[in-house]
Amino acid sequence: MRMPSAGRLLSTILFLAAILVAPNLARSKQAGVQDPLPSWNEGASKKSIVDFVTRVSKEGGPDFVPVDQRIATFDNDGTLWVEQPIYTQFIFLMDRMRSLAPHHPEWKTTQPYAAAVSGDLKALAASGEIGLVKLFMVTHAGTTTEEFPPIVENWLATAKQKRFDKQYTECVYQPMIELLAYMRANGFKTYIVSGGGVDFMRVFSEKVYGVPPEQVVGSSLKTKFEMRDGEPIILRLDEIGSVDDGPGKPENIDRMIGRRPIAAFGNSDGDLPMLQWTAAGPGPRFMLLVHHTDAEREYAYDRHSPVGRLDKAWDEAVAKGWTVVDMKNDWKQIFAFQK
Amino acid sequence: MRMPSAGRLLSTILFLAAILVAPNLARSKQAGVQDPLPSWNEGASKKSIVDFVTRVSKEGGPDFVPVDQRIATFDNDGTLWVEQPIYTQFIFLMDRMRSLAPHHPEWKTTQPYAAAVSGDLKALAASGEIGLVKLFMVTHAGTTTEEFPPIVENWLATAKQKRFDKQYTECVYQPMIELLAYMRANGFKTYIVSGGGVDFMRVFSEKVYGVPPEQVVGSSLKTKFEMRDGEPIILRLDEIGSVDDGPGKPENIDRMIGRRPIAAFGNSDGDLPMLQWTAAGPGPRFMLLVHHTDAEREYAYDRHSPVGRLDKAWDEAVAKGWTVVDMKNDWKQIFAFQK
Repeated sequence: MRMPSAGRLLSTILFLAAILVAPNLARSKQAGVQDPLPSWNEGASKKSIVDFVTRVSKEGGPDFVPVDQRIATFDNDGTLWVEQPIYTQFIFLMDRMRSLAPHHPEWKTTQPYAAAVSGDLKALAASGEIGLVKLFMVTHAGTTTEEFPPIVENWLATAKQKRFDKQYTECVYQPMIELLAYMRANGFKTYIVSGGGVDFMRVFSEKVYGVPPEQVVGSSLKTKFEMRDGEPIILRLDEIGSVDDGPGKPENIDRMIGRRPIAAFGNSDGDLPMLQWTAAGPGPRFMLLVHHTDAEREYAYDRHSPVGRLDKAWDEAVAKGWTVVDMKNDWKQIFAFQK
Repeated sequence: MRMPSAGRLLSTILFLAAILVAPNLARSKQAGVQDPLPSWNEGASKKSIVDFVTRVSKEGGPDFVPVDQRIATFDNDGTLWVEQPIYTQFIFLMDRMRSLAPHHPEWKTTQPYAAAVSGDLKALAASGEIGLVKLFMVTHAGTTTEEFPPIVENWLATAKQKRFDKQYTECVYQPMIELLAYMRANGFKTYIVSGGGVDFMRVFSEKVYGVPPEQVVGSSLKTKFEMRDGEPIILRLDEIGSVDDGPGKPENIDRMIGRRPIAAFGNSDGDLPMLQWTAAGPGPRFMLLVHHTDAEREYAYDRHSPVGRLDKAWDEAVAKGWTVVDMKNDWKQIFAFQK
């Protein structure tokens, strides 16, 4: 009798295994299938997400998109974490400025610095994301790449969002955290594209959102490489490099990512150009706006809010059939701490 | 007789498979172990690369670096592909300019435009990478994100490097292609950080180097998002956004990647700040310069070449013990077409 080769023996064994074990495996797999979006109520919003992700990742299907083209961009403030009563980074900058104010008497008479030092949230909010960049500039020009992250880390570890009495990195939307993970599990590369400072967001983006620093796009100062005492440093200059808001979002996506996203997520008019740019590409597309409708569990605001105004983008979303999430009705849970 | 459960049956089958098949698999695996860098001659350069990659990827070892921090940056011109007698992108731009010249009589009297139109390679080379950016600007301002890539694709498909009579994308260094793949196989994220135009390089980087567009950093024009006939477009403006050469390299690495590389590869003084920035971080570091020493198979140039001058960076590499590749002696093969 001729001995079968190891290869044929392996084939036979695998064939037996398939016949005998496969039905059991199939059953246990079915039992183990978990809803990847448990904090989302069943409804049109959740369905639109799952339908899109399923369609683009179905190999051989008419809407299949190769993995390398599955780029999804997410705004941060108001889309992934709380932006009321004012952008978190404003609070951070105000805290920084108060400690620096004694050396800057001129801040008392010039906006948005005066508002920051006196804690006038309304005036600060009115200065918009450009005001934020100005504060960013005045507090961080002169710091090096190495000096900045520990300042942010220390602040995040101690500061609290007043209304919820939680750390800011806990004030992130649980349904969006699930959505980020769900999209990555289906081959998407998830990016943050936000008006916030890129150096600020990169400190926590990986830990909080699973988005590594190189996938964070944000507002920035110009920088300068130089040698100091024989050591190379990169200094933040007193000059705006990029304001990553409104048209700045698609411009920076083009410059930094170099591909057009196939899915984009935002919550305000500042996200409209990013959603328009995403929508205008060929093949399947997905655009979503988070509408803040839940004054009880979070905040309710839209057309008339100085922070996170949702007006033109809302109209366009309705006209074009983009997904508009109604936080109150679409989200079973908003924060992980609100069980 | 009690029937075994499917689970126990599977265990038994896998156990049998392990006993019967494993020795054969082990043998074939051993036989199949291939040198990941076959175009590199054995010697100090190759050894330094393999030592570094082995050390940082050895879990539990003293020099282990987590995968997410394994960032490696590569210059393009002269490091991954031929840059003599002049940067490839110059040739591309000259070809573009000749077709546009009749509409621009002013180009006849102003450098580097006059040199480009008349084909004066020496004057062009003297204008450096900033000259390149100027030509880039004048030929591409006004084009949209969608219009540019097909122009580059068409040119690459037809233009040839004169001396080798090969397409430019064939004039890439086989040992470096192997090195890119070897590093990626060991968990590195490989980036191109080059003085060349980012929009130009992104057209071929994935196909030729396996580096996707979002991992290409380069020189760029400012851009502007706007609506044209109801469609969003991104226009290249007649204004330099960033010159990714010299100090611009670490500045752009910081801005676009947001992490300090642990390995950097270049060939000229324009790469020195990137290598210095890489070297100055904590933990294991690897810096490499390609020295063009092979006039027969490629080109030989260093301290006095206007294109790809290697002078200060060479001195610093020697002083600091960085790896300096001697193309003539370290590379068994330079191009895939030179078997």
